[in-house]
Amino acid sequence: MSEKRNPITVHQAVKTVMKWKKRGNKNVVNFSECDDGYLFDPICADHPVPPFNRSPYDGYAIRSQDTELLSSNNSIDFEVIDEIPAGHTIEKIVGKNQTVKIMTGGAIPPGADAVIMKELVSKKEGGKYITIKRKLKPGENISFKGEDVEAGTEIISKGTYINPGVKALLATFGYSKVPLVKKPIIGLIATGSELLHVHEPLAPGKIRNSNSHMVSSQIKRAGGNVNYYGQIGDDLEDLVELTQKALLECDFIITTGGVSVGDYDHLPEVYRSINAQELFNKVAMRPGSVTTVAEKEGKLLFGLSGNPSACYVGFELFVRPIIRYWNYSDSPYVRPVKAYLNKDFPKANPFTRFVRGELQYSSGDILFKPVGLDKSNAVSSLAKSDALMILPGGTRGYKKGNLVDVLLLEDQKGSEEMWDMRK
Amino acid sequence: MSEKRNPITVHQAVKTVMKWKKRGNKNVVNFSECDDGYLFDPICADHPVPPFNRSPYDGYAIRSQDTELLSSNNSIDFEVIDEIPAGHTIEKIVGKNQTVKIMTGGAIPPGADAVIMKELVSKKEGGKYITIKRKLKPGENISFKGEDVEAGTEIISKGTYINPGVKALLATFGYSKVPLVKKPIIGLIATGSELLHVHEPLAPGKIRNSNSHMVSSQIKRAGGNVNYYGQIGDDLEDLVELTQKALLECDFIITTGGVSVGDYDHLPEVYRSINAQELFNKVAMRPGSVTTVAEKEGKLLFGLSGNPSACYVGFELFVRPIIRYWNYSDSPYVRPVKAYLNKDFPKANPFTRFVRGELQYSSGDILFKPVGLDKSNAVSSLAKSDALMILPGGTRGYKKGNLVDVLLLEDQKGSEEMWDMRK
Repeated sequence: MSEKRNPITVHQAVKTVMKWKKRGNKNVVNFSECDDGYLFDPICADHPVPPFNRSPYDGYAIRSQDTELLSSNNSIDFEVIDEIPAGHTIEKIVGKNQTVKIMTGGAIPPGADAVIMKELVSKKEGGKYITIKRKLKPGENISFKGEDVEAGTEIISKGTYINPGVKALLATFGYSKVPLVKKPIIGLIATGSELLHVHEPLAPGKIRNSNSHMVSSQIKRAGGNVNYYGQIGDDLEDLVELTQKALLECDFIITTGGVSVGDYDHLPEVYRSINAQELFNKVAMRPGSVTTVAEKEGKLLFGLSGNPSACYVGFELFVRPIIRYWNYSDSPYVRPVKAYLNKDFPKANPFTRFVRGELQYSSGDILFKPVGLDKSNAVSSLAKSDALMILPGGTRGYKKGNLVDVLLLEDQKGSEEMWDMRK
Repeated sequence: MSEKRNPITVHQAVKTVMKWKKRGNKNVVNFSECDDGYLFDPICADHPVPPFNRSPYDGYAIRSQDTELLSSNNSIDFEVIDEIPAGHTIEKIVGKNQTVKIMTGGAIPPGADAVIMKELVSKKEGGKYITIKRKLKPGENISFKGEDVEAGTEIISKGTYINPGVKALLATFGYSKVPLVKKPIIGLIATGSELLHVHEPLAPGKIRNSNSHMVSSQIKRAGGNVNYYGQIGDDLEDLVELTQKALLECDFIITTGGVSVGDYDHLPEVYRSINAQELFNKVAMRPGSVTTVAEKEGKLLFGLSGNPSACYVGFELFVRPIIRYWNYSDSPYVRPVKAYLNKDFPKANPFTRFVRGELQYSSGDILFKPVGLDKSNAVSSLAKSDALMILPGGTRGYKKGNLVDVLLLEDQKGSEEMWDMRK
């Protein structure tokens, strides 16, 4: 069980995991239930926008040719022959020196080819006539049919997350049923005999299980659904049984803990028992070096570290891209950006390190502020992090003002390309 | 009804709204239901972290004094007297030239004051003895009780959004019940006789209602709960009745549409009918100039424009800070940053404009890319926006590379200070 492990690079590890990527199936839901989903099909316009020539203001629709000679010294009275609230149309044709009162969003009546804003006319005889004293161009103040979007246009690509703007488009184009991706179901098992439940009092040598709850939130944030199988001790048979059950019921499995080389860390043996193929069991990074991934009949089994920080980083680097790809993202990888380090970070290290921190913005620059102790077992700084700085192995640390590589954690866009630490 | 309106600045408008800000009440939920909530109380550590002196590695616990003379040329054999899996403690005391095998996370046994990593020793007699040939300092490879967090420390402040890291802390410190803020209930009414339902086919002069669905998602994103009262036509009595009902059942009300100066836009009259105090009915900005806000017995009534873009911007500027403050945020305002414009934006305008777009990152710089047409009635660009550029009124537009003010839309942090366009 204590075999020698050969670390692979983060880049190789992500590449290996992504060899087993899959796309999800279609799941059509009612419009009212589509929040927080990912589009399985692109959104296409079922009608032009605007759907008809309409008025962008409250005003009066006229024929522009009737205003050709008008100026502040030369006004004409127009007869108000009708009015059009938004949502109504009329069949009357606007004739010479006639006008129709029109509300914002109202359809331009036949005959008219321009609108004058309400504020620019004066009313006469209780509104039966209005006086205009300016020249209007043909088409002035008209929002033309299809000028925003033509019918049939693909507006939003598949894989897009449904934010408020996307929701508005679905409504506009009549998607009373919305084709979503069926999110992956991810089985989650916490292992370790040191683990207490949240409600249990602390006992000597024990800690409360926090990893599975954290990972559960990470899964939801990334776009997956969680099947939680609870926390179990270090009994090998229990773990094998639960893993087999989860394999039948889920698309992927995550275990937390049980991946170190300690004698009670059974995960490698579990993989052997169920005939899963171990893809790697050591990654050249800190935290998270013991991250182990296996595959069984096309399903990935992620063995994340029992250490909270390592568990967190392992999830974001290896599991998130798999979930995003499943949901039809074209940019499944964690999004890398360059940022200026906002204070010295002198610590040298032979391993590639992922340092937690916060992005800050200042006068057009992006800054990275390392958060907290960043000891591998310090959970307190995870809550405040929205980014991870990458310190390549072998460097001597960094100075304030250095441009560093940073991965964004709270980002829906992602990256098409995997971040490559060799660059 | 067509009274003259006096526009106030965006700054004045936000300030006016925030005079009526309120904090939410406490709502204690089970740990498993706390996702997506905001903390009513700070998280405090109920125990030190680590809770006891523990081993960060798989290895052997020893007395450092026994290694004082060791080197690669001078080794000693240590007797392995016991072993400690994570989660267990032992009572045996480690004596001279004795050792206890210890797993990652295991409690340091009495007598020992250092740990040597498993990889650095050689085993003898089937593990009954190990050979050590290096000197260890007192405390070496020990994670000391409380070194990350002392008991009683406030770890996370009230008002914090529960992200995966916060969830981990709640679990670690035994929050089986979590004190959350009771989110505001926001009544939502869509008005306009031109509105069709999502499932209805398009008809002449009509459009499908998209605003209330968009705003509904914006409310959830900002941290509120929605009571949707449906869409109604332009009938004054219906609107008055529904508004009164919503006032009884909700903490705030949002209506979409009905705020223009068109004769069928009844909102000002609704406010008069129910004796609400109109705070303002015109803001010097585009889109969203007709945004109207009233107050009745301390409850705010937001009248957002029926135009999708105006509605969207009005929500983010005026409603979001009220929701965030309610949820105990210290940074309720939309977060402003400086960004470099990534292309010319020549359009001059007498009004302060909010231009939709995307943030981009490049070599440590933040760029702003305007998205789509940005016509006030173009809904298509809202879906792709994660930021709004502010163009102050009276400017002649901007050149590529100019540093511009940008408001972040998909941000949980916010800003303590309101963005001030006078600066």
